[in-house]
Amino acid sequence: MCQLLGMNCNTPTDIVFSFTGFATRGGLTDEHRDGWGIAFFEGNGVRHFVDHQPAISSPVAELIKSFPIKSKNVIAHIRKATQGPVILENCHPFVRECWGRYWVFAHNGDLKDFAPVLDGAYHPVGTTDSEQAFCYLLQEMRRRFGDTLPAMSELTAFMREMTAEIASYGTFNMLLSNGEALFTHCSTNLYYIVRQHPFATAALSDDEVAVDFSELTTPKDKVAVIVTAPLTKNECWTQFKTGELKVFVDGDLLPD
Amino acid sequence: MCQLLGMNCNTPTDIVFSFTGFATRGGLTDEHRDGWGIAFFEGNGVRHFVDHQPAISSPVAELIKSFPIKSKNVIAHIRKATQGPVILENCHPFVRECWGRYWVFAHNGDLKDFAPVLDGAYHPVGTTDSEQAFCYLLQEMRRRFGDTLPAMSELTAFMREMTAEIASYGTFNMLLSNGEALFTHCSTNLYYIVRQHPFATAALSDDEVAVDFSELTTPKDKVAVIVTAPLTKNECWTQFKTGELKVFVDGDLLPD
Repeated sequence: MCQLLGMNCNTPTDIVFSFTGFATRGGLTDEHRDGWGIAFFEGNGVRHFVDHQPAISSPVAELIKSFPIKSKNVIAHIRKATQGPVILENCHPFVRECWGRYWVFAHNGDLKDFAPVLDGAYHPVGTTDSEQAFCYLLQEMRRRFGDTLPAMSELTAFMREMTAEIASYGTFNMLLSNGEALFTHCSTNLYYIVRQHPFATAALSDDEVAVDFSELTTPKDKVAVIVTAPLTKNECWTQFKTGELKVFVDGDLLPD
Repeated sequence: MCQLLGMNCNTPTDIVFSFTGFATRGGLTDEHRDGWGIAFFEGNGVRHFVDHQPAISSPVAELIKSFPIKSKNVIAHIRKATQGPVILENCHPFVRECWGRYWVFAHNGDLKDFAPVLDGAYHPVGTTDSEQAFCYLLQEMRRRFGDTLPAMSELTAFMREMTAEIASYGTFNMLLSNGEALFTHCSTNLYYIVRQHPFATAALSDDEVAVDFSELTTPKDKVAVIVTAPLTKNECWTQFKTGELKVFVDGDLLPD
């Protein structure tokens, strides 16, 4: 199984702290050695880094840890290959454009006998079930809504329907963002936390690192972090239920 | 005006030497300080780095210079903004997927009153004429050839036609690759060289660096480098003519 990490905030925030603990799982404290990737929205643009080397020994991961990129929406992934060989085009997250926006997607899990008809604008470059699911989701989204981004409520209803359909083929923990919202779906393992005023000190589970967020934030900041397994040992993470879709905008969990 | 750098080879080759001279132009020996980007094909995957900081002071550019990524097709760009503000989504190269392959595009020049109808699968995320041209080109390519990648001769004829059409709106020096071929079009400034056996020593024009390629290559290697202005002072670069489209595959210039 792979590991997912997502962040959605109301102000551009760096993910160095969370990524440091997360990247440790790519070969050191866990077995996910089959590559990794991370995508940061910056305005409407995306910085996209993928590597089929383990995160723990990747020079690109070193760059991410030492160079604080500030973003309101981040998706990261560490891969344990289940379908498709360890090659660059199979590393998550995947990026596509729809309606003049980038969409970023990462998946943890395994889909069995999943062979959607892909006769639209999106086709996988690699050989993973995950990229197939992403292409299918965007194809159907475009089919449903035509040429324009719908209202958030309509988009959320669509995502709820689609993720349930795809999850019927197996395990579908996923993160998807268009730079505004972060859509998250849980089949098995996903936790979230919203960090907000009053901020406290957090200590990583995977590394001997602690950070006092009150020194780095303003009282208005809200930062939602979504992850396969809690990253810190002294904070209270909420576990998703099986089949839940949760949507985060500006660091807030939207009501169902 | 921006600066372009492309490389097409028959064996994965690192671009550290050429990029070192090229990146120097991003703020030190030339005035192109409005961001930069580079994309490397690796198999069917793409490593894509963009930054709106000047290449000369960008930590990501430092990574590229010190971490030799081997690739058969590379496109790099240093931006001098003519249309669109200095934001990440306006940095070249741009990446899209068509027919299950990534396509990478960078442009140098300025298109006037260029407003193609974009009613297909590709829409600009940023505000540059360049990304518009790229989306238009892919849209028309898909319209012409349907669901499958055509033979190289058909694709080349199409690119010749399309680049001439787009170039009628202004200056259109461009590099485009699908990981197999590197399509290059010149309106004003573009030079190329094919390095092959017997390899010699090359000395950068922009920096005090020389490299003996014979130590780094095998006799079978072929490396085509395409650039806005020659990168070395002791090699013989061939200048493109206005309106020329040249296609490179496996380090060879294809015959017209």
